[in-house]
Amino acid sequence: MTILGIDPGYAIVGWGVLDYQHGQFQVKGYGAITTPAGLSFEKRLEMIYKDMCVVIGKYKPEALSIEKLFFTNNKTTGIDVAQARGVILLAAALSGISVYEYTPPQVKQAVVGYGKAEKKQVMEMTRMLLKLREVPKPDDTADALALAVCHAHCSGSSLQNRILEKYKLLQQ
Amino acid sequence: MTILGIDPGYAIVGWGVLDYQHGQFQVKGYGAITTPAGLSFEKRLEMIYKDMCVVIGKYKPEALSIEKLFFTNNKTTGIDVAQARGVILLAAALSGISVYEYTPPQVKQAVVGYGKAEKKQVMEMTRMLLKLREVPKPDDTADALALAVCHAHCSGSSLQNRILEKYKLLQQ
Repeated sequence: MTILGIDPGYAIVGWGVLDYQHGQFQVKGYGAITTPAGLSFEKRLEMIYKDMCVVIGKYKPEALSIEKLFFTNNKTTGIDVAQARGVILLAAALSGISVYEYTPPQVKQAVVGYGKAEKKQVMEMTRMLLKLREVPKPDDTADALALAVCHAHCSGSSLQNRILEKYKLLQQ
Repeated sequence: MTILGIDPGYAIVGWGVLDYQHGQFQVKGYGAITTPAGLSFEKRLEMIYKDMCVVIGKYKPEALSIEKLFFTNNKTTGIDVAQARGVILLAAALSGISVYEYTPPQVKQAVVGYGKAEKKQVMEMTRMLLKLREVPKPDDTADALALAVCHAHCSGSSLQNRILEKYKLLQQ
């Protein structure tokens, strides 16, 4: 199963693509779509949409795992993140990709096994599971990979596979 | 100048297209894009996007006049409206249409001449200016036409034209 994880935003969209088979992860690619602040908002949305289409066209994921939105204190930023997220969902829908949403506690639970884990723990566990030398930068990209791992754990794997993963990690 | 007015939403998107030349309005078309509640959210976004592309392709507007979003008490609905609005902005951007945003007081001021006018007054003035027999239904469509009138008054017309409009209305 090929999973595209997305950390939505309008200035930075983190993305990461994983292949998950028999409890094994293979990193296919990751990065960040960035849009310049000087551009009109609709042009920034256009950049996000076009770059999303390129990523989808290259890796052909079957599932999109994306963070569920909640509003924080900064409502204006929240509106713009939601508008960008709509464009990302559209790109997925037009390519027939199934969309799955996860809250930050769900990601923490699925990746670290503890819903109140710290952000650093999630990043480090993601790094280990994916056998990466370093946590990818920017944080948006690392978050996107964690979202992809979260979906793999929530949907694609049996408990046995997850025990196997943890066992392998302990052996390293 | 051909203007597309949009009242954004995810269940109903009101739209109206006006041609505005020398202080005269000509209604080109209006309606509402509706999406069924039973469909997945991304599929609803896809419907909105595709229908928006049909409207844009048919009327070839030069400007999009759309309501500026603010968050009310219902934040969850607000997120979904914002996501749908992102898709609408994308459709405009991909067609090279300029986007203009107006707040409800700006629409009231531009249509009725009073920023605290009641919704009914805005609808009735829009109906008179556009020489329509009845206020279009649903309200989302009437709001979209008001947004198009607002943009015409804010950008396309001289004060003289607006005095002419008012004079013609008084003669009727």
